[in-house]
Amino acid sequence: MPHIRLLIGADTALGPGKAALLEAIGRHGSIAAAAREMGMSYRRAWNLADSVNNAFRQPLVATATGGKGGGGAALTDFGREVLQRYRAMEDKAAASIAADLEEFGKLMAEASGGVSDG
Amino acid sequence: MPHIRLLIGADTALGPGKAALLEAIGRHGSIAAAAREMGMSYRRAWNLADSVNNAFRQPLVATATGGKGGGGAALTDFGREVLQRYRAMEDKAAASIAADLEEFGKLMAEASGGVSDG
Repeated sequence: MPHIRLLIGADTALGPGKAALLEAIGRHGSIAAAAREMGMSYRRAWNLADSVNNAFRQPLVATATGGKGGGGAALTDFGREVLQRYRAMEDKAAASIAADLEEFGKLMAEASGGVSDG
Repeated sequence: MPHIRLLIGADTALGPGKAALLEAIGRHGSIAAAAREMGMSYRRAWNLADSVNNAFRQPLVATATGGKGGGGAALTDFGREVLQRYRAMEDKAAASIAADLEEFGKLMAEASGGVSDG
């Protein structure tokens, strides 16, 4: 069955790329390390974290400035809650259309995640 | 309530951008006109149409070469079926998480599609 991902909000306040970046920031405690893991520039990761912070009522990512290595970053409690809700909605949405996705997968080439007829 | 969009397949065989392009090709009967409407280059639109054709078992977009203006393009019956199923899954997934999205919207800034508390 093909995998689905959710984009939320008109200008994609939160989608798979931003969610993965937030999770990486949470794991690494650092925007720079998260950017390396995601194969993106520090500047792009910082801009994405800033845009997701602005898309919500409170910051999801907190940064500490100064010191060697430039501080570090962490998810806020609010950020963890938003991510948990996002993943839960993704799972629930996928479950609601599981049978449809199974059929849809039969229309897809196998290399794209479609299921085999065989 | 925030709007959701679906990405389907590991490398996004079909997502909101490709779906909108396919719909524009269907309306205009032309990849060039669809590209103009979407604000993208002809080359990018052609590449997206080609990638979506390759992600499925049959082409979704048929092109006619030659003649003045370079032929034209149309959705195949298969393409119309894929799009119809995609939009139906999007609607069903959104309906399945409507209450969660309503709550999630309260965490979002209003400019991002969040709902007001007021």
